[in-house]
Amino acid sequence: MRYSVLGTGLMGTAVAHALAKSGRDTAVWNRTISRAEPLAKAGVSVHADVGSALDASDAVVLTILDLDSAMKTLDGHFAALEGKAVINLMSGTPALAREMAQRVEEVGARYLDGTIQCYPSDIGAAEALINLSGDRAVWDAHKDALEAVAGRSTYVGEDPGAASILDAALAGTFYTAGLGAFCEALAFLRDSNIDPTRPEVALDYWFDLFRAQAMQLVDYVAQDDFATSEATLAVYLAAVRQWRSTMLAAGQRGSIMAAAQQNLEIADAAGYGNSSFAAQVLTMSSRPE
Amino acid sequence: MRYSVLGTGLMGTAVAHALAKSGRDTAVWNRTISRAEPLAKAGVSVHADVGSALDASDAVVLTILDLDSAMKTLDGHFAALEGKAVINLMSGTPALAREMAQRVEEVGARYLDGTIQCYPSDIGAAEALINLSGDRAVWDAHKDALEAVAGRSTYVGEDPGAASILDAALAGTFYTAGLGAFCEALAFLRDSNIDPTRPEVALDYWFDLFRAQAMQLVDYVAQDDFATSEATLAVYLAAVRQWRSTMLAAGQRGSIMAAAQQNLEIADAAGYGNSSFAAQVLTMSSRPE
Repeated sequence: MRYSVLGTGLMGTAVAHALAKSGRDTAVWNRTISRAEPLAKAGVSVHADVGSALDASDAVVLTILDLDSAMKTLDGHFAALEGKAVINLMSGTPALAREMAQRVEEVGARYLDGTIQCYPSDIGAAEALINLSGDRAVWDAHKDALEAVAGRSTYVGEDPGAASILDAALAGTFYTAGLGAFCEALAFLRDSNIDPTRPEVALDYWFDLFRAQAMQLVDYVAQDDFATSEATLAVYLAAVRQWRSTMLAAGQRGSIMAAAQQNLEIADAAGYGNSSFAAQVLTMSSRPE
Repeated sequence: MRYSVLGTGLMGTAVAHALAKSGRDTAVWNRTISRAEPLAKAGVSVHADVGSALDASDAVVLTILDLDSAMKTLDGHFAALEGKAVINLMSGTPALAREMAQRVEEVGARYLDGTIQCYPSDIGAAEALINLSGDRAVWDAHKDALEAVAGRSTYVGEDPGAASILDAALAGTFYTAGLGAFCEALAFLRDSNIDPTRPEVALDYWFDLFRAQAMQLVDYVAQDDFATSEATLAVYLAAVRQWRSTMLAAGQRGSIMAAAQQNLEIADAAGYGNSSFAAQVLTMSSRPE
């Protein structure tokens, strides 16, 4: 199997290195060819134009800025993809991934959409994660190569948009927005001259409790049953109002705290005050419940 | 040592039970005395008026709705507190805790302000946590009794407001708002028909990464050095914009995601785009940096 990697920014360069290091025939193309040339030392063939890079490969890996830019780069080259596998690794919306899958399939090629869940410096490592979704035949044929790029590469479903959905939900909303909430806590401690590493702050206790409670929330959602014998959503809402007023009184902006309060208020107004804290998932979209 | 517990709601009842069970002389008072009477079976003396409950004790434990209500309940009884320890366990702002400490000290009593970090059903357990701050002499004298109420009772500092600050920062902003962010992720997965317990979703991976990254954020703040060689705040901001547009396109409200974006935009506008994600703690309060 011969691979071509289109786009040799930080991520594309790391991917091409990992493929070449695993002994695979690897070609690269980059708009500014001088940025791709250092890869020649690693045994990679460097191409000045997209068509020649495509001709040199059975599978095309897209590591261009984002999926929108990748589609523009491939404009006029789609016919040359016939019979090949196309694997996008850069971000895009689920809708765009589905559109790309359709365009690729129209020319007799197969499509897999991926989201890289690690930093460029982690590429090639056993614990690095890439989620991939779309054509299972592409996954089956290129699983080994993808594992050489990221040891924890995982096929997450046939919907080409699935990897993008998981990315926005987990890397985005849980991980990044959750860490944003953690930063609001750190800011309040810092401005109160409380060192968060003091044992009395008990960060370990809170991380353990957070994870245990999050898994309980998963259970409520999985069972689609939001009745609770523990603290109700209304109890959390009252506490959040108190906590937020404490933060505002101390001069903290508390933006994420305000958004958490808004989510609970909307759920409470919709009649979920006596349900579990998890019931707020029922009123977080504009879709009918 | 004789204890009186003022307020026998769910929490006060659990606290009085734990004290009595540990062999301590325990009195209770409640506005609606019928709610306190069942405690008599546990060997607790039930009092119809506040003054008589105070007279029966060396230490007064406040488990009334909140600190504001407790101050109102004690109106006209402050003189009777002379020589006693007063331990509030219900929520209030740091400023209110400091005001209460002053009023208590003015009549020759000593004050400790606490926040209970567990549910009523956990009271009496070894892993239950209460944070207490204020007069260290009260802590030293009543540590054993407080540990009978919650095994992980912890003295967190001499500022009577410290327990309340930790509560708002950790139980409030990190735990509850962070779990709110997790709920936004669960809502998006649910509406996309993705079962969060499927192994491909890799929740364990994300919890591990979350905790590791949170501890790195703590390091940045502890060292007060926000230079980074990893992904910059501006890189996170660009990703958050992409994730949020993905969520909005899928009909998700994404309130917490929007607040996380706002925090990063404010930090970016203040010149921290090339700094660590942690640098947003520098622009989260209205206090000068």
